[in-house]
Amino acid sequence: MRNSRRGAVDPFIVMDVLAAARAAEAAGRHIVHMEVGQPATGAPAAATARLAEALGGDPLGYTQATGLPELRAAIAQLYDKWYGITLDPARVVVTAGASGAFVLAFSALFDSGERVGIGRPGYPSYRQILRALGIEAVDIETRAENRLQPVADDIAAHALDGLLVASPANPTGTMLDHAALAALIEAAQEAGAAFISDEIYHGLDYGTRAVSALEVSDEVIVINSFSKYFSMTGWRVGWMVVPDHMVRRVENLAANLFICAPHAAQVAALGALEAHEECQANLSVYTRNRELMLKGLLRAGFDKIAPPDGAFYVYADVSEHTDDSLAFCAEVLEKAGVAITPGLDFDPVRGNRTVRFSYAGATEDIEEGLRRLAAFMADR
Amino acid sequence: MRNSRRGAVDPFIVMDVLAAARAAEAAGRHIVHMEVGQPATGAPAAATARLAEALGGDPLGYTQATGLPELRAAIAQLYDKWYGITLDPARVVVTAGASGAFVLAFSALFDSGERVGIGRPGYPSYRQILRALGIEAVDIETRAENRLQPVADDIAAHALDGLLVASPANPTGTMLDHAALAALIEAAQEAGAAFISDEIYHGLDYGTRAVSALEVSDEVIVINSFSKYFSMTGWRVGWMVVPDHMVRRVENLAANLFICAPHAAQVAALGALEAHEECQANLSVYTRNRELMLKGLLRAGFDKIAPPDGAFYVYADVSEHTDDSLAFCAEVLEKAGVAITPGLDFDPVRGNRTVRFSYAGATEDIEEGLRRLAAFMADR
Repeated sequence: MRNSRRGAVDPFIVMDVLAAARAAEAAGRHIVHMEVGQPATGAPAAATARLAEALGGDPLGYTQATGLPELRAAIAQLYDKWYGITLDPARVVVTAGASGAFVLAFSALFDSGERVGIGRPGYPSYRQILRALGIEAVDIETRAENRLQPVADDIAAHALDGLLVASPANPTGTMLDHAALAALIEAAQEAGAAFISDEIYHGLDYGTRAVSALEVSDEVIVINSFSKYFSMTGWRVGWMVVPDHMVRRVENLAANLFICAPHAAQVAALGALEAHEECQANLSVYTRNRELMLKGLLRAGFDKIAPPDGAFYVYADVSEHTDDSLAFCAEVLEKAGVAITPGLDFDPVRGNRTVRFSYAGATEDIEEGLRRLAAFMADR
Repeated sequence: MRNSRRGAVDPFIVMDVLAAARAAEAAGRHIVHMEVGQPATGAPAAATARLAEALGGDPLGYTQATGLPELRAAIAQLYDKWYGITLDPARVVVTAGASGAFVLAFSALFDSGERVGIGRPGYPSYRQILRALGIEAVDIETRAENRLQPVADDIAAHALDGLLVASPANPTGTMLDHAALAALIEAAQEAGAAFISDEIYHGLDYGTRAVSALEVSDEVIVINSFSKYFSMTGWRVGWMVVPDHMVRRVENLAANLFICAPHAAQVAALGALEAHEECQANLSVYTRNRELMLKGLLRAGFDKIAPPDGAFYVYADVSEHTDDSLAFCAEVLEKAGVAITPGLDFDPVRGNRTVRFSYAGATEDIEEGLRRLAAFMADR
């Protein structure tokens, strides 16, 4: 049968690492997982309790395309709590994870062949989703002095129709402060380019609060999810905030492309929004893990890292140790028993000299992983 | 902010009817719902029980992009049970509902501007999803003598790059027998066009078993879901069966576009596959409802209907009663208190003279609705 060009998206390179890690575990070996981009914890107890209760009640049929009204209202309240912003719940669209929100945002905004800028390094699926939709992903090579984030001049320089930024970012963890974010949004608006802010790691910051694009302008699309701060990766529930005038368009797209986000996950999300203490306890674990990582990685010889402002990642330049990050990660897995992610998924050009460490796991695993990394690097 | 052309998809016209029905109910009126395309029943007890048990266990994190291996295996077994087909579980990809499967199938198969044929009348989201992906939806005007289904000649006549058929179909309920399906698949393969078979209503047939495209050829994409026969609409879990050589491509697309189908829904689906008796009991209700509908609609004066082979719909030509189905449905709602769907959502050209009745509800509601429809038509 025929195939499309657009459908030939790239596989995740980390999957090869993961497969090797699983094979090692199947052979009885203990592996420390610093490659995973998801919390080791499950959904908050209040989330599963809420769903357990709902399972005995009404059929969990289709919800409104934009999501359960009470969930939209509760998400809107979060903007007051986190940023002091009054947000109309009508502008909140509940989605099938942040992934669903990207598909909706891109198809609402861009036609085939239009140009959307994404920072490199960045989350690999941005590029692949754009490609699958027939939209051109334009790589913006970022610089260390800009915290590996795009800058305002990139918009005109690349003749962009849209710009997508993430703060805190994956894989780097770096954040854009209010001034940097405002400069980007202003430049995008001057150029007539759409501005999409991926805020999926909001809530996971350490000392300085992440700034929402909604603190700068209402003429942006903000994407977020229950996957990270609320620890609900597999539930596939997220949301987007869109300008007033886009609500109906996004609603129509959502009704046709998704019908609705999973009802059970929406019910669980309502519980998660009330689980402040449990989510903050998870954040305390990441805070402790991050301190251990910063010390432990430096001690092991990973001393060129991006500013680890938020999320649960450390992105390291390992050019002093290798020019083949895939082979390096395979070696770390084999000799140290620690799974880490080669930079190539995030940066096809420079990622052969970078790796990403995740500290989303349990603290004792982080400690053990750091011990192993230090021993491995000392022997190398 | 800017908008795309592709994002300007049409709203569902039935939403206006639904809004009017809800307003009437809010005002204290009793409305019989014959407009809904979903079962009144919830997920099978075995499905919710399985999930309830899982809620206390491991975190429901991301699953493999193609779905839980045990679910893929159980779905493959269904093909043996239903059709006597031996299916390699590796060819099964678990998706976020049939909706997710359409997005994956279309992006795997077609580039921007390519031409995909869909029968008119048909499920409205086919057209809108294709449009949102920048692919051209080509309407095939179907004929009553062909059970309102496309025929082999349509493929060359419309210079199609792909053809999508549904059997049983929505809104008509008509099915393609083995010969009709084989003729379409053969013509598509001769023309180098992809063949996509929407089998979401399989299991819901009355006397004659629905034929799967996989009984004809392995070089097709089959899409199905837990929403209808398994009564799990809001859970957003479905699947697709793809040829061997497309598995990796669809897996990569799924990983990037969706990460995975909702984990909780996948666990529930495992339970649903063991709920044979409950699903068959639901089918018995639809069987009884269908008999009542066929007699009652005829008695009320709706005597020009498509052959109601499967699903839970009756599609009626009401040109003797109106040339404005939207106004007619509004009148039926207002005067009879019965919500039905105007044909315009399914057929923008001829749908002003058709309506769809759903019998997915409870039998007593069907009986009451038919009484009201008969009285309304007698007075008209």
